Amino acid sequence: MSKDKQFVFGHQNPDTDAIASAISYSYLENKRGENTEAVALGKPNDETQFALDYFGVKAPRVIKSALPEVNKVMLVDHNESQQSVSDIDKVTVTHVVDHHRVNFSKPQPMYYTAKPWGCCCSIIKSLFDKYGVEVPKKIAGMMMSAIISDTLLLKSPTTTPFDKKIIKDLAKIAGVDDIHAYGIKELKAGTNVDDKDAKTLIDTDAKSYTLGGKSIRIAQINVVDLNDITKRKAEVKQAMADENKSEGYDLFLGMVTDVLNSDSDLIAVGDPKLAVEQAFNGKLDADGMMKAPGVVSRKKQVVPPLTKALGKK
Amino acid sequence: MSKDKQFVFGHQNPDTDAIASAISYSYLENKRGENTEAVALGKPNDETQFALDYFGVKAPRVIKSALPEVNKVMLVDHNESQQSVSDIDKVTVTHVVDHHRVNFSKPQPMYYTAKPWGCCCSIIKSLFDKYGVEVPKKIAGMMMSAIISDTLLLKSPTTTPFDKKIIKDLAKIAGVDDIHAYGIKELKAGTNVDDKDAKTLIDTDAKSYTLGGKSIRIAQINVVDLNDITKRKAEVKQAMADENKSEGYDLFLGMVTDVLNSDSDLIAVGDPKLAVEQAFNGKLDADGMMKAPGVVSRKKQVVPPLTKALGKK
Repeated sequence: MSKDKQFVFGHQNPDTDAIASAISYSYLENKRGENTEAVALGKPNDETQFALDYFGVKAPRVIKSALPEVNKVMLVDHNESQQSVSDIDKVTVTHVVDHHRVNFSKPQPMYYTAKPWGCCCSIIKSLFDKYGVEVPKKIAGMMMSAIISDTLLLKSPTTTPFDKKIIKDLAKIAGVDDIHAYGIKELKAGTNVDDKDAKTLIDTDAKSYTLGGKSIRIAQINVVDLNDITKRKAEVKQAMADENKSEGYDLFLGMVTDVLNSDSDLIAVGDPKLAVEQAFNGKLDADGMMKAPGVVSRKKQVVPPLTKALGKK
Repeated sequence: MSKDKQFVFGHQNPDTDAIASAISYSYLENKRGENTEAVALGKPNDETQFALDYFGVKAPRVIKSALPEVNKVMLVDHNESQQSVSDIDKVTVTHVVDHHRVNFSKPQPMYYTAKPWGCCCSIIKSLFDKYGVEVPKKIAGMMMSAIISDTLLLKSPTTTPFDKKIIKDLAKIAGVDDIHAYGIKELKAGTNVDDKDAKTLIDTDAKSYTLGGKSIRIAQINVVDLNDITKRKAEVKQAMADENKSEGYDLFLGMVTDVLNSDSDLIAVGDPKLAVEQAFNGKLDADGMMKAPGVVSRKKQVVPPLTKALGKK
């Protein structure tokens, strides 16, 4: 009799790492005797779809809830309930593999592997090596794409020596000779903002947090020209204000990131704005915008200073 | 210049696993280039002292707070703030190695290794193997003693095939031919209750939890004869009631565990008693006591059913 099936999935609004982590970790666990299916909590974004098409990989099917299909799940590239499947509180989490802060509470002991590396797929590659399982060519391509995506081609301050080493191993398996040339194509595929409405732009890569008692939504929009968003600021701010109202967020913070030059513009709608100014040591202009030179990582450069400014440990 | 010093420590009211995990993990991290000191949040109990004396290992010094000596710490054999050092909220946690439920929140990503195994020292032994570091003889003896302690000589339902394999490896390194004979001696060393007052008995191996909004204290007292405590029940219950009052616990639950026969008596003082009856499917007598045959693990057989009975996920 086979084992109970488990879902493996990344966070809501999946990015390339969320999708590639689910695909690769599900493959690894199945090789180790588990019965898992990689699924996703949303459709691939443009960048991820580019990588899926490039390496000929099918997107995982989208689920709305874990029950009634499975009672047990494995989480990759996230651990916080707010970022997980809608019924996460009703199922058993057997494994977590993640590279974000740990903000997790479940009554049963389980397998939890976290490392402060730039990409969850780097950790998963180290698990393939640990268990002596070979990474298939197509999956290696997706994992390499995830490292490119999460580290902005190894330029984000989240990048570690492990990511730099592992991306080379994966590129070799995937048959990609020029990581940089492929990476620029991949990142650019995710920056087409002109044909998207403002709501889509602020929804595609957004995460929710409770920081210092405040409900905060932080979205990242990748561009190759910051002006692509600046020229549409009224529309974007309105979409943020609408979401604050409908979802009950205190503050919506948008990071508009120039993926080629590794800089961001911030857009803050809601309160407390003072915490944003303290966190980034600057002043928001009359539009609630400010420059954040060198800021590209929500996890390392936005959440920690904002947490501190909001007066929580 | 050497790296900033970090403390490595287990939970409050340390047991053999908490002490042995700190000693062994500190040794491993130092071999890997870190600058750590194994410390403890309390003095060794009688069982742990027996093992320390047997293998000629010095007890880690007791600290009351991490600051101002260090800013960074590594947690072993626990992760919950309530069970950790008093100023845990003011320091950075760089590593956790643990085998309990994850109930953890810190703003920065870090290294977190949890496995649902019987003993934290089993996980640490697997990390020695992963990094190719040899376990010194004395430390192997302590780690073996920890597995004996946490699994009650491999009889607790928390015991996994990993613990069974690893204890043999450790015994070999430690030069212990008969694990069972040594183990009985070690466990018995921790069951001397006659010369201890009731407050000491309920304090020595006790942990605090917040379950379903209630503040719960769960203590375990190891004995070779359940009657050693039954005959002193009035005194023990009074000590529990006193602690509920002074510390604000809603419920104090004592597990009196016969380490040779793997059974427990439960003693409940405070509320809600109904949750205890539901959790263990029985009736508390007029003294607030009930038999719990086969129950020996707080982590696996007490916390989860109590969590469920208290109406939390």
